[in-house]
Amino acid sequence: MGQDRSTERTPQAEFDLVVLGGGSAGLAGAFRAAAHGARVALLEPDEFGGTCVNLGCVPKKAMWLAAELSTRIALAADLGFEVTPPSLDWKALVAHRQRYIGNIHASYRRRLDEAGVVWMPCRGRLLDANTVLADSGVRLKAGRVLLATGGRPLRPDIRGAELGGVSDDFFHLCEAPPRVAIIGGGYVAVELAGVLQALGSRVDLFVRGPRLLREMDAEVVAQLQEDMRGHGVRIHLQASVHALESEDERVRVLHKSIDNCAPEAFDTVLFATGRRPNSDGLGLEAVGVAIGDDGEIVVDDYEDTSVDGIHAVGDVTGKLALTPVAIAAARRLMDRVFGGQAGAKLDYDNVATVVFSHPALATVGLSEERAREQYGEAVTVYATGFRPMLTALADSPQRSLFKLVCVGEEERVVGIHLLGESADEILQGFAVALKLGVTKRQLEDTVAIHPTSAEEVVLMR
Amino acid sequence: MGQDRSTERTPQAEFDLVVLGGGSAGLAGAFRAAAHGARVALLEPDEFGGTCVNLGCVPKKAMWLAAELSTRIALAADLGFEVTPPSLDWKALVAHRQRYIGNIHASYRRRLDEAGVVWMPCRGRLLDANTVLADSGVRLKAGRVLLATGGRPLRPDIRGAELGGVSDDFFHLCEAPPRVAIIGGGYVAVELAGVLQALGSRVDLFVRGPRLLREMDAEVVAQLQEDMRGHGVRIHLQASVHALESEDERVRVLHKSIDNCAPEAFDTVLFATGRRPNSDGLGLEAVGVAIGDDGEIVVDDYEDTSVDGIHAVGDVTGKLALTPVAIAAARRLMDRVFGGQAGAKLDYDNVATVVFSHPALATVGLSEERAREQYGEAVTVYATGFRPMLTALADSPQRSLFKLVCVGEEERVVGIHLLGESADEILQGFAVALKLGVTKRQLEDTVAIHPTSAEEVVLMR
Repeated sequence: MGQDRSTERTPQAEFDLVVLGGGSAGLAGAFRAAAHGARVALLEPDEFGGTCVNLGCVPKKAMWLAAELSTRIALAADLGFEVTPPSLDWKALVAHRQRYIGNIHASYRRRLDEAGVVWMPCRGRLLDANTVLADSGVRLKAGRVLLATGGRPLRPDIRGAELGGVSDDFFHLCEAPPRVAIIGGGYVAVELAGVLQALGSRVDLFVRGPRLLREMDAEVVAQLQEDMRGHGVRIHLQASVHALESEDERVRVLHKSIDNCAPEAFDTVLFATGRRPNSDGLGLEAVGVAIGDDGEIVVDDYEDTSVDGIHAVGDVTGKLALTPVAIAAARRLMDRVFGGQAGAKLDYDNVATVVFSHPALATVGLSEERAREQYGEAVTVYATGFRPMLTALADSPQRSLFKLVCVGEEERVVGIHLLGESADEILQGFAVALKLGVTKRQLEDTVAIHPTSAEEVVLMR
Repeated sequence: MGQDRSTERTPQAEFDLVVLGGGSAGLAGAFRAAAHGARVALLEPDEFGGTCVNLGCVPKKAMWLAAELSTRIALAADLGFEVTPPSLDWKALVAHRQRYIGNIHASYRRRLDEAGVVWMPCRGRLLDANTVLADSGVRLKAGRVLLATGGRPLRPDIRGAELGGVSDDFFHLCEAPPRVAIIGGGYVAVELAGVLQALGSRVDLFVRGPRLLREMDAEVVAQLQEDMRGHGVRIHLQASVHALESEDERVRVLHKSIDNCAPEAFDTVLFATGRRPNSDGLGLEAVGVAIGDDGEIVVDDYEDTSVDGIHAVGDVTGKLALTPVAIAAARRLMDRVFGGQAGAKLDYDNVATVVFSHPALATVGLSEERAREQYGEAVTVYATGFRPMLTALADSPQRSLFKLVCVGEEERVVGIHLLGESADEILQGFAVALKLGVTKRQLEDTVAIHPTSAEEVVLMR
């Protein structure tokens, strides 16, 4: 493949593709380009895997799994197992988590070597549309450049903001802080609140708006809020935080809220107030790559930037910030530019996603609200609320709510919203069916699998 | 609706439909017929819900959920929770289970009353094609008769068979017997083995054939056998049991097997060696209803027996013995005969099913073996073996194996076989997609939900 030799020609090495960023998007692009025979270099100053592997999906899911276990053990006690709520050796859990992540790092390094991708542990910036200067001093000539530098959590511009952490800091915790304030109403806030509450913290969640997860189906989110409150999370809606103040070893959260309670002091305050694309310091302005108002690299449907031969995928673009989206977009792009698949691009419609709340919320397609905006009277809705068998056996109050949003006389399914036990695993197959244009009748014509939660989706009336 | 009055006209009452059997099939038929305006009587001498609710799916799943909890608690200990393997108050678990089942009984009674169905706590038998004699002495005139009397576990004809129990007896246990032998290789045997082993028994499984679950995909079953052995179940293949013998308080299992180990003594022996339709004592022969060699009532694709106006659904027919199948078949039948839907019948192809083993095995469509018999060289197979994140975090050896069986150039998916954590909940949506004719490419075109087990189905290469 020749890449090993090409690195010897420093200070200038030639590649078909130079990738900036070794997260999910950059790695997927590099692997797919190499599979098509391209000579690829990938620059990543930190660990491979980006946000997903190091400070996002993977460690988050690990903590969520632990939180679920904790909830399960409580259910077990209710069912007849002689078990008391166990204490958690948080450091041991973190060690398991980091060992798992270490295995992913090693796997990526091995796969990069096998694929013949040249990887460099450094940053890079564009000198012109075909030249990247690595901060090791090497100058890379590139037929194409893929920008995949991801994003980072944003800290709001309020007084005392430095007293709070961001989601990255959550992963550095070594124990459950007794009292935690989380500021934000998006999925990161919801996930942090659920995990910390289940693992022993007492969590207050401060939300600026009138509800959590404002893009998602309102009825389902209302049930989630009820379930979260049932688990002990204190949710403060329309509670706009305007300052943090230090008080001894703790932090007071100053907010204006409807409930207007006195500001309380917390051991830990975490902001989950959005993220910002890492588009700084890449030399984009000089080369003429267009950047949007929020720092995102502007790309078209084909992941092309405003400069020929420069592409961008993943969180740096400001498109849907999901790992599988970034991976799929990067692969389609490489299929197009190196694989001879002329029209290849990712379809961003109907991408399924899961909020790892307690219980999980899985959603694909349109919320009831959006569907009514778009289709008006042609919308029909089916919903079923129930307690899964385990919950009912233990007489625990947590309820599932599954909902279908359909359109037209044939009742084509345009939205599926599943809140409850196992929702995270149930949705994927239904997301395939929705993409195939499944109708309500076709769901009913599929024989149920009994007894499961999933069968409720085909049994709704 | 007038049914209450009609019961007063004893000894003869007139109905559009008389249903024999208040299990899943009979109840579904009765409700649907009543919804179409039919006057319905339903005879059930025991509790409502039949095998599924009382001695099958429901209590089995309850025990499986408890078994899963037990396994989870062990994983939790590996992950850093300070918890020791808890003892189980089996009687408390059974009390929760029976309370849950009691709620189902009450719900059925309430729904029957609301639907105006006349129910009688007695058996009945046919006097002629339009007359049922209830053993309370009441004679019922019926426009149509639905036979839905279900089936029962079979005890094999071997010496000492009376020393062993059947699956019904499992539900009467009040503690985990220390040593259990289970005889059989079908799904009931697999499920009993898994639950008992997880809840504290030491289980030996004696299987006549060369493997478990002979109708299912061989590769997936091989992985299940490995996982079961990993959980401590001792599986004896090609071990034909020819006698049971009493030894003090215990039972010796005499078998011819390859491993040829000395016969051991067990506290409990359970047969899971098939079931037999409850077609006796219904007066079928006199009326001329055809019965098959195994006692099953012979029905055509429309659930019609050989006698006009007499129908049969569910386990008594010897068709696919699954609750949702019986329910769906009964509903379609009633839609046809009372709902004016001329061609309505159940499509028995591609019915999904789950074996609640540890881990669960979920399957729809053709095994690789059957597909190759049917399509030869046109078959392509994709499979992925992996450890789900929780298992990997705890460094537990249990592996998942997901497999797709495809046919033709377009790679239409004709079989999906999922073994592993959450497989029971993952399959339903994919079963819908398979029924819609999904191709491998369409699976790939659906963006994954990360990190889940379900995403492996759309990520296979």
